[in-house]
Amino acid sequence: MNVEESLARACAEVEPVDAAAAEAARIRCDALVKPPGSLGRLEDLGVWLASVAGECPAPVPERPAAVVCAGDHGVLAQGVSAWPSEVTGIMVGEFCADRAAVNALARTAGASVSVLDVGVAGELPRHPLLKSSRIRNGTADLATEAAMSREEAARAVLAGAGIAEQLAGAGADLLVTGDMGIGNTTPAACLIGAFTGRPATEVTGPGAGADEAALAHKAEVVDRALALHSPDPADGLGVLSAVGGLEHAAIAGLVIGAALERVPILLDGVSTVAAALAARALSADALGYAAAGHRSTEPGATVALEALGLEPLLELGMRLGEGTGGLLAVPLLQAAASALAGMATFEEAGIAV
Amino acid sequence: MNVEESLARACAEVEPVDAAAAEAARIRCDALVKPPGSLGRLEDLGVWLASVAGECPAPVPERPAAVVCAGDHGVLAQGVSAWPSEVTGIMVGEFCADRAAVNALARTAGASVSVLDVGVAGELPRHPLLKSSRIRNGTADLATEAAMSREEAARAVLAGAGIAEQLAGAGADLLVTGDMGIGNTTPAACLIGAFTGRPATEVTGPGAGADEAALAHKAEVVDRALALHSPDPADGLGVLSAVGGLEHAAIAGLVIGAALERVPILLDGVSTVAAALAARALSADALGYAAAGHRSTEPGATVALEALGLEPLLELGMRLGEGTGGLLAVPLLQAAASALAGMATFEEAGIAV
Repeated sequence: MNVEESLARACAEVEPVDAAAAEAARIRCDALVKPPGSLGRLEDLGVWLASVAGECPAPVPERPAAVVCAGDHGVLAQGVSAWPSEVTGIMVGEFCADRAAVNALARTAGASVSVLDVGVAGELPRHPLLKSSRIRNGTADLATEAAMSREEAARAVLAGAGIAEQLAGAGADLLVTGDMGIGNTTPAACLIGAFTGRPATEVTGPGAGADEAALAHKAEVVDRALALHSPDPADGLGVLSAVGGLEHAAIAGLVIGAALERVPILLDGVSTVAAALAARALSADALGYAAAGHRSTEPGATVALEALGLEPLLELGMRLGEGTGGLLAVPLLQAAASALAGMATFEEAGIAV
Repeated sequence: MNVEESLARACAEVEPVDAAAAEAARIRCDALVKPPGSLGRLEDLGVWLASVAGECPAPVPERPAAVVCAGDHGVLAQGVSAWPSEVTGIMVGEFCADRAAVNALARTAGASVSVLDVGVAGELPRHPLLKSSRIRNGTADLATEAAMSREEAARAVLAGAGIAEQLAGAGADLLVTGDMGIGNTTPAACLIGAFTGRPATEVTGPGAGADEAALAHKAEVVDRALALHSPDPADGLGVLSAVGGLEHAAIAGLVIGAALERVPILLDGVSTVAAALAARALSADALGYAAAGHRSTEPGATVALEALGLEPLLELGMRLGEGTGGLLAVPLLQAAASALAGMATFEEAGIAV
């Protein structure tokens, strides 16, 4: 069985979330000692967590794990970023040294941080937090050729699914997607454009800080890449290999892996919602296990969230990536599960309704 | 010195937040290893926490304490709520029994819960979590007379300030306001109308679940009360005594007490933002120590937040009160402080900018 077949088999094994557990949770929620509906979206989250866990109430997630998938990008040759490729590796070092934004936010969320190298260009020192599954030293330039082969894309997806399985096996009960890759908002925009059919100008954003001229150039590169490859949105692997990043492929794998493990997964910013579109193309039911942590200010994030049918939990004007926006939503899931599991009912409180 | 003078003296002791610490935090924030501004509002929160603490970076709040201020309301005689007054006392019992929404959310936020009885109508059993500072057994009917005397209002404010002082003295480093009082969205609407000058129809909401007819009646009661008392918005105590609730007065005191202790305080829903308007009228600088946890679906909450110049951190369609929306924002403050304190700078990471 080749790699692509292995991936297809894994995708086919994903089961839909549990509708009966969701229904039980909705009924329980309405009986709790509060005006019906007064906890708003927290009630929906509790119901969703029950559907993911397949039980009502769902256990409160207590061992969240963030995974930062890292890769480099040949499209930097097009001048789409002010930062050099080397910064990807330097930031991986900062994650391992526990002093980047993702670490600070993981600390207060009680989450672990793992870094998955699927395609950093430079050499990286070994580190216990760093899992090496490097497929290649960065992608090719998607503006002139396929970013990677289908097989490479499939291997990156399987690497992401593998780390989800590994973390869940070690006790993680909530995953958070993260990304690191200088230049990766360009492939993110390409993925979102390819999967939604929306024009480059609507899905391309300033990323780490492009000015107006740089943004226009970036959108032009996205436009050109989509015209060159004309990827078929029904072919998840085809889109990833043509215009994706290795970290996007790995994040798609994380989503699929979370679904296989029946663990909820929180999406972060534009790169991870772009990857979620790929995950959905590969395995439609996998998306049932995902919630959107926040709305990045990148315009493509909003386009992708709408296409995914996901309403983000937070909107704090963030655009950093690394998993930061996903980690901030971890306590909301914990609160939702805690409310559903821990509150008395009107009957128990002796209040007639 | 009478009670009103004691309160005025306390209010005069509030100092503004520390602008120099805020400036230092802004500079530090821009040097951290992330694109400038990419943590969005989390950056502003870190700056604000530094201004409250008077040091940069501020310590990460680790001992949050929610205070649920409880009272009953004579205006129930006007038929403004479908729930009987007795439910206030029953809910106080649920808070003490650790099985209400506020308890479930406090658990995941690592927060303590205290209940402050400033004006519940019925008898309450003693309990370690229940602080009794009862001023009177519920307010009078604000639609026909002053809800309470100025002295009673001042005593309730001081009770709130007192518990803030007590909790901060015992180590609490972040306070969260909460409320419980059947019928209390009617005085909340009156307070917001009185302080902002906006008409009853814009500040009155369905509360725990009024239908359209009940809502129209409620707005008519608010309108009538404001016309009867014509409270002076510059006279915080006058407004509270005319149309407030004892719990609103106590929550105003919590805000003032937090400012005196230089501890940040998170506001919750419509009752607590209404109370914050009173706190500001009593002591303008006190508001510098407050942040808005969430936007309640009650329309008056949005009117009050705008008047206060506060942008809420969360918008999850909630309208429960008890402190639930404030507690959900606790991890955001912790994350903001953690990012500012724990991240490396570009220089430390060896990245040239």
